[in-house]
Amino acid sequence: MQFLVRMDVRLPHDMSQEVADDLRARERERALEIQRSGRWPELWRIVGQYANYSRFDVASGDELHELLSSLPLFPYMQIEVTALTRHPSKLD
Amino acid sequence: MQFLVRMDVRLPHDMSQEVADDLRARERERALEIQRSGRWPELWRIVGQYANYSRFDVASGDELHELLSSLPLFPYMQIEVTALTRHPSKLD
Amino acid sequence: MQFLVRMDVRLPHDMSQEVADDLRARERERALEIQRSGRWPELWRIVGQYANYSRFDVASGDELHELLSSLPLFPYMQIEVTALTRHPSKLD
Amino acid sequence: MQFLVRMDVRLPHDMSQEVADDLRARERERALEIQRSGRWPELWRIVGQYANYSRFDVASGDELHELLSSLPLFPYMQIEVTALTRHPSKLD
Amino acid sequence: MQFLVRMDVRLPHDMSQEVADDLRARERERALEIQRSGRWPELWRIVGQYANYSRFDVASGDELHELLSSLPLFPYMQIEVTALTRHPSKLD
Amino acid sequence: MQFLVRMDVRLPHDMSQEVADDLRARERERALEIQRSGRWPELWRIVGQYANYSRFDVASGDELHELLSSLPLFPYMQIEVTALTRHPSKLD
Amino acid sequence: MQFLVRMDVRLPHDMSQEVADDLRARERERALEIQRSGRWPELWRIVGQYANYSRFDVASGDELHELLSSLPLFPYMQIEVTALTRHPSKLD
Amino acid sequence: MQFLVRMDVRLPHDMSQEVADDLRARERERALEIQRSGRWPELWRIVGQYANYSRFDVASGDELHELLSSLPLFPYMQIEVTALTRHPSKLD
Amino acid sequence: MQFLVRMDVRLPHDMSQEVADDLRARERERALEIQRSGRWPELWRIVGQYANYSRFDVASGDELHELLSSLPLFPYMQIEVTALTRHPSKLD
Amino acid sequence: MQFLVRMDVRLPHDMSQEVADDLRARERERALEIQRSGRWPELWRIVGQYANYSRFDVASGDELHELLSSLPLFPYMQIEVTALTRHPSKLD
Repeated sequence: MQFLVRMDVRLPHDMSQEVADDLRARERERALEIQRSGRWPELWRIVGQYANYSRFDVASGDELHELLSSLPLFPYMQIEVTALTRHPSKLD
Repeated sequence: MQFLVRMDVRLPHDMSQEVADDLRARERERALEIQRSGRWPELWRIVGQYANYSRFDVASGDELHELLSSLPLFPYMQIEVTALTRHPSKLD
Repeated sequence: MQFLVRMDVRLPHDMSQEVADDLRARERERALEIQRSGRWPELWRIVGQYANYSRFDVASGDELHELLSSLPLFPYMQIEVTALTRHPSKLD
Repeated sequence: MQFLVRMDVRLPHDMSQEVADDLRARERERALEIQRSGRWPELWRIVGQYANYSRFDVASGDELHELLSSLPLFPYMQIEVTALTRHPSKLD
Repeated sequence: MQFLVRMDVRLPHDMSQEVADDLRARERERALEIQRSGRWPELWRIVGQYANYSRFDVASGDELHELLSSLPLFPYMQIEVTALTRHPSKLD
Repeated sequence: MQFLVRMDVRLPHDMSQEVADDLRARERERALEIQRSGRWPELWRIVGQYANYSRFDVASGDELHELLSSLPLFPYMQIEVTALTRHPSKLD
Repeated sequence: MQFLVRMDVRLPHDMSQEVADDLRARERERALEIQRSGRWPELWRIVGQYANYSRFDVASGDELHELLSSLPLFPYMQIEVTALTRHPSKLD
Repeated sequence: MQFLVRMDVRLPHDMSQEVADDLRARERERALEIQRSGRWPELWRIVGQYANYSRFDVASGDELHELLSSLPLFPYMQIEVTALTRHPSKLD
Repeated sequence: MQFLVRMDVRLPHDMSQEVADDLRARERERALEIQRSGRWPELWRIVGQYANYSRFDVASGDELHELLSSLPLFPYMQIEVTALTRHPSKLD
Repeated sequence: MQFLVRMDVRLPHDMSQEVADDLRARERERALEIQRSGRWPELWRIVGQYANYSRFDVASGDELHELLSSLPLFPYMQIEVTALTRHPSKLD
C-alpha cells in the first residue's frame, strides 16, 4: 500500500542544543535504515520549512504506524497521512 | 526542480456525459505524454477522491505552469503547488 | 486494513426528484451488497446531516477506492478517508 | 445512543517521563474498564497520530461526558463529539 | 438529552418566490408544532443572518434527527449539532 | 437583549492545583450569583469539553462585557459572542 | 448599542444587469435613509472587494436585525456581526 | 487614508502582575496620546474579548505601522489591518 | 503607498467562450495601461493557478480601489489586499 | 526562478533581550548580504505585523531553501513559499 505522509517538526524552544542534535542524529540514522528496507521510496524537504513530504510503500496502515512511531522525532512531529491508490492515467 | 502538486477535479454537474468523457480521454492522453517525457515521475490517485498527488521534475516553475495549463482538465481543477528540495536524510 | 470514512452527499438542487430517487435506491442496494460482503462493518448517519461516518475493513487502499467509487452517489459525495490501526488499549 | 468521538492527546513537553508513564498506565486501565462495560465498542488509533477515533454506546450525552471526564488523560485531550443515528441503508 | 443546533438556510437563487414562500410557511407550521410538543424550548434568529441557534430537548439523537429531517427546509439547511450536558455551576 | 456565548477554558498546564481549585470555586460562586440575578438563563457544558454554551439576557453589550469580565476564569477563557434576536417562528 | 458589521455582497452571475442595477439603486436609497436616522455612523468600502465594514448605533440587536434585513441586497449578502462596548482607553 | 485594525492582546501567563500593569498603563497613555492627535478616531472593545476594533486616519501605511509599533503592547498583540476607501452610498 | 494584492479569477462555467475571450482581451489591455503608468510594478502568475500576486504603488487606498475596480475581470475576481511598509533591513 | 515568500517571526517570550537583539542584528546583516547578491529583489514589512512579504530570484528551490535556512531567525519563523511564473499580461 502507498501512503503520502507530511511531517512537520516542532522542537520546543527550551530544548537544549545537545538533546536536539542527538535527536536529529538518531532520526537520520533511523530514516536511512527504513529507506534501505525499501519502504520509504520518496522523501523530500519542503522549501522553507522544517517539514517533509514522503511516500511510504508498506503492507498495511499498521506497518506505517509502526514505522512512523519508531522515529526518534515522532513525539515532536505533527503528521498527516493520506492513503493513495493507483492512478488510471499512470504510465506503466 | 521538484514540485509536489495536488490536483482536485471539479466538473460542473450540468456538463454532458460526452463532453466529460472527451475531456477525460484527452486528459489521459496528455498525462501519458508528459509522463513519457520523464517530467511527471509520481502520479497517485487519492483514495475516495477525484484528486491526485503528483511529483513533477522540471527545469523551472515556468515549465511546470506550462505543463499544468496544457492539461485539458486544467480549467476544472483546483491546483496546489509545493516546492521541494533535497532532504538531508535522503538515502543516496 | 481499517479505514474511517466520512461521506457528505451534495445533490445538485436542479436534479429531478426521479433521478435523485433512482440514485438513492441504487445507492442503498449497493451499500447493502458491500455490507453483506463483510467489508463495511460500521455505517452511521450523522445527526442533522446528509452524511455518514463509516468504518471499512478491506485488504488495501486500492480495494477501498474501488468500493467507494462503485457507489452510485460517488460523483455527488465529498469523501474523507482516515487510516486506522490497532489501539494499544483496545480490549481483545 | 451512539457517538463518534475523536480524542487528540497533547502532553506538555516539560512533563516528566514518570508522570507521563503513570498517566498512560492509568488511562489504559480505565479504558479497558469502560470497554468491559460494553459502552466503548470501537477504539482505533489514527495512523501517525497520538489520537483515536472511538464509538461510544451510552444512555445519554450526560453519561458520555462522565465517561470521558473520568479518563486520566482528559485534561490533556482535545475531544470532538459527533452524535450518530441509525443509517437507513444499514444492514440489519 | 439536550442538543444545541445551529441551522443555516441557503435557498437556491433560482427558486421561484412561490415555492420559497410555500416552503417557509410549511417550515413555520412544523416548527410551531414541534415547539408545542415541548421538544424545541429555545429558538433564536442570529442577528444579520438567515440562521438560528436552537436547543432541543429530546429522548435521543435518533429523535433529534427525525425532528430535523421532518423540517420542510431540511434539504436547504446546513446543520451543526452539539451534544450538551448539565453544567456543574448551573443554578438548580 | 439576548446573546449566545461560548466559553472555552484553557488553564496553563503549570498552574498549581490549589490556584486552579480556588479559581474554579470562585468562578462557580460568581456564576451562581449572576444566574440568581436572572441574566444568565441558559448554561450548558459541551459534552467532552471544558467549555460551555450559554445564553445571557442583558440590557446591552456593555452589561454583557461587564458580566463576562467579572468571571474569575475570564483571563483563561476564549469567548465568542453571537447577538440573537426573536425568531419569527418562535412559539409565543 | 454599538455593533461592527461586515457585509459581503454576492450577486448571482446570471442576474440581469437591470435587476442588479435596480437592486443597487434601492440599496443606496435605503442606506442613505438609515444613515440619516443616525443609526449607521460608519460605512466604509473594503479596498478591492464588493464588501463594507460598518458601525451601527442602535437600541438593540433586534433593531439591528430589522435594519439589516430591510436592505434590498440582504438576500445576497453574507453578514457578520460583532458586538462592541466602550474601550477603557477611549478618549472622552 | 483609512484603515480598520483589529488588535488581539495575548499576555504570556507567566508575566508578573506588575509588569502587566505597567505595560497596560503605558499602553493607555500612548493610546490617549495618539487619539488626541486625531489619527485614531474609532476605538472599541470587542464584547467578551481582550481585543479591539479601531479605525485609523493616517497619511499612509508607513505612518500606521509607526503608530502601531509604538504601542507598548505591540509585541503581545496579533494585529490585522484592512485598507478602507470611501463607500459610494456614504452620506456626505 | 505599497500594497500586495492577490487576485483569483473565477469565470462562471456557463460563460460563452466569446464573452470570456473578450473579457480577457480587455483585461490585458487595461493591465498594460496601468502598468505603463508605473503604478503596477510587480505582476506575477501563481504557478498552477488562474491567479496572480501583484504589488501596486499608489497614492492611497482610494486610488488602489479605483484601479482594481476598473479591471474588466473585477466582478469575477476574489481580491485580497495587504498594506506594506518599508522593511528596516531593505537595502537602499 | 521567482518565488513569493512570506515570513512570520515568532520569538519565544522568555528569550532575553540580548539574545533577541543579537539575532536581529545578525539577521539584518545576512539579509543585506543576500540582497546585495541580487537574489532578494523585493522585501516589504507587512503593516502591523512582525512579518514580511518578499520575492526571491534564484536558480532553483534548492537555492531558495539554502538562503532561507541561512537566516539567523530561520528557527523562529513560519515561512510560506509560492512559486511564481511570468504573467501573460506583464509589460515587457
